Amino acid sequence: MRTLKLVVAYDGTNYHGFQKQPDIVTVQGILEDALSKFCGEEVATAGSGRTDAGVHARGQVVSLKTNGRIPCDNLVRASRTMLPKDIVILSCEEAEDGFHARHSARWKRYCYRVHVGEKPDPFLVNYTWQLCEAPDVAAMNEAASLLLGTHNFQAFQSSGSVEGDPVKTIYKAEWEQNASELTFTIEGNGFVYHMVRNLVWTLVQIGLGRRTAASLAEELGSQRTEFLNAPAPAQGLYLDYVGYENM
Amino acid sequence: MRTLKLVVAYDGTNYHGFQKQPDIVTVQGILEDALSKFCGEEVATAGSGRTDAGVHARGQVVSLKTNGRIPCDNLVRASRTMLPKDIVILSCEEAEDGFHARHSARWKRYCYRVHVGEKPDPFLVNYTWQLCEAPDVAAMNEAASLLLGTHNFQAFQSSGSVEGDPVKTIYKAEWEQNASELTFTIEGNGFVYHMVRNLVWTLVQIGLGRRTAASLAEELGSQRTEFLNAPAPAQGLYLDYVGYENM
Repeated sequence: MRTLKLVVAYDGTNYHGFQKQPDIVTVQGILEDALSKFCGEEVATAGSGRTDAGVHARGQVVSLKTNGRIPCDNLVRASRTMLPKDIVILSCEEAEDGFHARHSARWKRYCYRVHVGEKPDPFLVNYTWQLCEAPDVAAMNEAASLLLGTHNFQAFQSSGSVEGDPVKTIYKAEWEQNASELTFTIEGNGFVYHMVRNLVWTLVQIGLGRRTAASLAEELGSQRTEFLNAPAPAQGLYLDYVGYENM
Repeated sequence: MRTLKLVVAYDGTNYHGFQKQPDIVTVQGILEDALSKFCGEEVATAGSGRTDAGVHARGQVVSLKTNGRIPCDNLVRASRTMLPKDIVILSCEEAEDGFHARHSARWKRYCYRVHVGEKPDPFLVNYTWQLCEAPDVAAMNEAASLLLGTHNFQAFQSSGSVEGDPVKTIYKAEWEQNASELTFTIEGNGFVYHMVRNLVWTLVQIGLGRRTAASLAEELGSQRTEFLNAPAPAQGLYLDYVGYENM
């Protein structure tokens, strides 16, 4: 039996998240329908992780096992016409036996896009969090640097979490500004439920002067097991890359 | 009675075009509903021109007459919460008596976005025409220069046109390349039905070596009164600016 590794990009706007659910249009559901046709048999896929409704991916990884003999290149080519245009299989390769998109993953990179402007931009509604007021990027970066290293992130998980260990190691957490757009990039060996969006919400509050970096440091060590505010909006979040080698 | 001039940007993806139609969701229909509330009376608007389903605007101009006394700034502010986020009133000002968004317009600028890439980009589906093969930009610009000046564009109007005189004057027609994105900018004193999309289709064929600039020159002088091919896709087209002073 072959094991395939796919890298998939999608615009999450029109989907109820990644994960397959009965009678609901999800990215994984659409993918499995198409892949089953290509492989000539029903296939089950594993994603590197879920993405919520409205969240995007530039590098979601999906694995599957199949007896189907379709060459990888043909699968990618066939997917161009068979999949909706907002889901793109970027690559397909043979993976070693035992490879699993979620279990084998070692780290992930997420990006979060914030657009700052006095006037809203109608073209960025589904792709950024739009703020009228410009946050202080230096203050956000100072606070973001507190996230580096290994911490218990239980205070930054939304309720309804099904994650296990909330202790995660963060390798990178950094804001970059490019004209009216701010991008937060975070890399880590794992993320609790809504962690990136909850951190972005917190960092933006710090950038707007409504919270302090000290309060973030305090929460990182706290006993609270749930984030108490609304996460930053889904549409700004992008699953950018999934790594399968140790950092 | 006051006359107001609004500049409006919209993402056309979710609308059946600009023009109001019964029982159909259009940009003008949504705008008139909101403006009638702001003005405290039923208002009728005029747009500078129609845009088709899926076509976008960065600078559509809309005029209206009203007895309503809402200050322009308040109208813009109220629109931020009352309109869907993919329609934005960028500005509102008092216009002179007799100003009419369509009749008073002297020229318009349209932009058309083409994305070139071996792999499709799921995030640009609604915002560009995606090509796998790179067209020759120099060849497209050489052909585009033939459009400058005054010509009869009847061979570049789609059937179903309700326009009058097909003789139009073009002030600018130019492609620019920025990494994998090509943008065509065209300015003129008027445009026949589907003219920009039909010209873009033709210029891209020239860029791909499937037509010659000479054939474009020939069509510009021809007796044919209708464009015979499919226009370039709606989603690449942006109504960028409407001018009310002579060029």
